[in-house]
Amino acid sequence: MTTANATAFTRLTTAEPVLVDVRPAGEVVPGMTPQTILTSGAPLPWEAYRGGQRRAILHAAVYEELAADPEEAEAAIRAGWIPIGACHEHGCVGSVAGIYTASMPVLVVESARHGNRGFCNLYEGESRKRLNYGVFDEEVRRGLDYLGGSLGPLLGAAVRRAGGIPLVPIIRRALHMGDELHSRNTAATLLFSRELFPALLELAGDGWDDEVRDALRFLRDADYFFLRLSMAAAKTMADAAHGVAGSSMVTAMTLSCREYAIRVSGLGGRWFRGPLPTVEAKLFEGFTEDDIEWIGGESHITETVGLGGFAQAAAFGLQAYQGGGPEAMVANNLAMYDITLGEHPDFKIPYLGFRGSPTGIDVRRVVATGVVPVIDGGLAGKDGGQIGAGVLKAPLACFIDAARALGPAAG
Amino acid sequence: MTTANATAFTRLTTAEPVLVDVRPAGEVVPGMTPQTILTSGAPLPWEAYRGGQRRAILHAAVYEELAADPEEAEAAIRAGWIPIGACHEHGCVGSVAGIYTASMPVLVVESARHGNRGFCNLYEGESRKRLNYGVFDEEVRRGLDYLGGSLGPLLGAAVRRAGGIPLVPIIRRALHMGDELHSRNTAATLLFSRELFPALLELAGDGWDDEVRDALRFLRDADYFFLRLSMAAAKTMADAAHGVAGSSMVTAMTLSCREYAIRVSGLGGRWFRGPLPTVEAKLFEGFTEDDIEWIGGESHITETVGLGGFAQAAAFGLQAYQGGGPEAMVANNLAMYDITLGEHPDFKIPYLGFRGSPTGIDVRRVVATGVVPVIDGGLAGKDGGQIGAGVLKAPLACFIDAARALGPAAG
Repeated sequence: MTTANATAFTRLTTAEPVLVDVRPAGEVVPGMTPQTILTSGAPLPWEAYRGGQRRAILHAAVYEELAADPEEAEAAIRAGWIPIGACHEHGCVGSVAGIYTASMPVLVVESARHGNRGFCNLYEGESRKRLNYGVFDEEVRRGLDYLGGSLGPLLGAAVRRAGGIPLVPIIRRALHMGDELHSRNTAATLLFSRELFPALLELAGDGWDDEVRDALRFLRDADYFFLRLSMAAAKTMADAAHGVAGSSMVTAMTLSCREYAIRVSGLGGRWFRGPLPTVEAKLFEGFTEDDIEWIGGESHITETVGLGGFAQAAAFGLQAYQGGGPEAMVANNLAMYDITLGEHPDFKIPYLGFRGSPTGIDVRRVVATGVVPVIDGGLAGKDGGQIGAGVLKAPLACFIDAARALGPAAG
Repeated sequence: MTTANATAFTRLTTAEPVLVDVRPAGEVVPGMTPQTILTSGAPLPWEAYRGGQRRAILHAAVYEELAADPEEAEAAIRAGWIPIGACHEHGCVGSVAGIYTASMPVLVVESARHGNRGFCNLYEGESRKRLNYGVFDEEVRRGLDYLGGSLGPLLGAAVRRAGGIPLVPIIRRALHMGDELHSRNTAATLLFSRELFPALLELAGDGWDDEVRDALRFLRDADYFFLRLSMAAAKTMADAAHGVAGSSMVTAMTLSCREYAIRVSGLGGRWFRGPLPTVEAKLFEGFTEDDIEWIGGESHITETVGLGGFAQAAAFGLQAYQGGGPEAMVANNLAMYDITLGEHPDFKIPYLGFRGSPTGIDVRRVVATGVVPVIDGGLAGKDGGQIGAGVLKAPLACFIDAARALGPAAG
C-alpha cells in the first residue's frame, strides 16, 4: 500500500463516528440556505433531472413551502432562487432521490478522532409512498411532518441526554447478527433502540409521553431505521479519508437519475462519471425489470467503507429480500478483497472466520482486475415506490477515468 | 414417517408457546411444595449427587431458608423433609445444576394450541458466580433476591399487561439474526426486550420507575436472558409431543453430575441413561480440560426442538465463543438432518437457503446411522463458574436402549 493510501485507509477506519445530535438541516448542514434543496448524485444542470428525481425535487419545494405548486417551484429553480445542491458536497448522503430541505431533521454524526461531521436525514417509514421515490401526497406530507415535528426533536433530545451514541460498537455487533448495514439493518436498529431507551424513559417522565410512545411504535416497525445512521457514519468515515494527496481510494460513489459517479481521496472535488449500474434484481410480485427507474441513491456510501455488498457474507438473510444464494453472496464478498486496500479492524464477518471486511476501494485495483464494487440496493419503480432489491454493479468507466487522472502509482 | 411420529412431530412444531406470566415457582409449578428443590438430570438417589450439583442443592436449601446451613440441609434431605425432584418431571428445565426453589420466579410459557405449560427460572446475570454452578455467597444471594424481589414481579406485571408474548415469532426472527437460541441469544434478547418496552414504559409511569430502570440495565448486559425463554418454549413444545403411543421421537435430553439421559414420546416417563457426553471445548484463558466438571444441564431442550446445535449454521458468530470453524458448523448442522423426523416449518436457517432446521430426534435413526445429537453447551469448572463452551455429543448408549425398548417400527 502506498503511504498516501495507508493514510487514507487509517483515517477511514479510525474515524469513530458518534451520533451527537438530531437537528433541522438548515441549522447544521454546511452551505444550506432556507431555500436550498439537496439531492443525490454528482451535480447536474436542472434540465438533466428527470422522472422520479425531478418530481421529488419539485415536491420538496412545495413541502418546504418555497412554492405553491410544482410549476412555481420549477420557475423558482430556473430563476436560481431555489438552489439545487449535491448531497455529497454538503456532508450529506441521500437515500434514493436523496431530498434534503432546510426544515428536515438530520442525524448529526461526528468523528471523535478527526472532528469532521456527516449527516443523513431520517427514514420515512415502511410506507411504499415516499418523497424520496418521487411521490408526494397528504400521507407523505403527514409522514414528513411527523419526522420534523415529533420524532426528530425527540431523538435530538434523547441523543443529547445520552451524551452521544458511538456507532462503531453498534455496527460491529450488528455484523455478527446478520446485518450488512445497507440492505439489512434489523439488528442495528434494535441495538440503537436499546441505547436510546434509558433516555426515552427519562423523557417520557419529563412530559414527552406521547412522542416517546409514537417513537417506540415507529422504531418497532422500522427495521431500516438504522440505515440512515449507517449512512451518516459511513459518510463521516469516508470524508475523514478524503483529500489525502496521492491516494487512489474511493471516498464517494453516487447515483443520479442519469449516471453513476465516484470521487477519489487524492483527486479533490472532481466527479468521475459513468453510465448507470447493471443489476441482478429480485422484484416484488407483479413487477418486471422494465419497471425499474433510476432516481438516484447514495446509500452505497456503506460499500465505500466496507459494509453492504462488501459484507454480504455477514447477512445471509438478505437472500429473501434481494435474491441470490449463499454461495454467490460469499463469492461476491470475497471478490471485494481483490479491489480494496485492507481489512477493516472493527467490521468482522463471522462466516469468513471473523475476517475484517474488505475496506477502501482502490481505483487502480478495480482497473487492474476489472472487478467492480458490488452494491446491495433497493430498486425504485416508474410510478414511484420501491419495487424490489438486488445486487448492483458499479460501471468500470468511472474507475478507468479516475485511474487515468491519478497517473501511475508513486509507490 | 410413521403415523405416531408424524403426530408427535406436528404437535411439537405447532405448539405456539406464549409467555403468559412470571410467577414464583411455588405458585405455578406442578407438584412443587414449599420445601421442594428441583435439579437437572434424570432422578438420582441423594447419595449419587456430587460436586457442584450437590453443593448447589444444599445451598438452595439455605437460600430458601429451609435450613440454616448445608449440614442441616443434608439432614433434612435425608429425612425426606426436603424432597429433591427432577426438573423435567415438573414441567421445568434447568440450566446447569438447574436449581428451583419455591420462591424463585419462573417464566410461565403456555402452548396456545395444546394448552400445556413449560417453565424456566430466570437467568442469574453475567457474573461467573451463580448458584447453578454450585457457588453461593452474599453476591449470589443478592442476585437471586433481585430476581425474586424486583425483576420477576416487574416482568410478570409487564407480560400480563402485554397480554402475553408469543415466542415463535421472536425465535424465528432471531434465527435470521445470528442466534441458534442455545449458546447465542443476543438477537432474541433484544427482540424480546423490544416487545416488553411499551409495557415497561407504562409501568414506569405507574410507579415502578426504579424496577424498570434496573430491569433495563439488567437486560442490557444480559445477552443470554432469552435462553431461559427459549428453554421454556422448547420444553412446552417437547412436552406437547410427549406421550404419543408408538412414537420414537426424543422429547427430553438431560444431564446430571453422573449421566446423560433421554425420554422418548412413546415410552412414557422412563429415562434411558448413558454416560456423560464427549466434548470439543474452547476454554477460557487459564483452564484445561481437566478443570471441566459435569454439574448437570438441561438447556439442550433447545436441541430437542430443532434449535442450538441443530441450527448451528444460523450462528457463525458462535465460533468466537465455543470454537470450531464455519465449515465444521455447517457439517454439524447438516448431519442432524440424518437423525431427525422433519424440517421445522418456522425455524429456518438463512445459510442453508432458509431450509427448516432438522427437528424431532428419532432414536431409531440415531441408532441406524450412529450419528448422535450435537449440543452447543457451556462448560462448568471444578471450582464453580463457567470455564468455557463447546460442542457436546450425546452418548449413543441411551438411544440404543430406547430403540430396544421401542422394538421394531410399526410402519
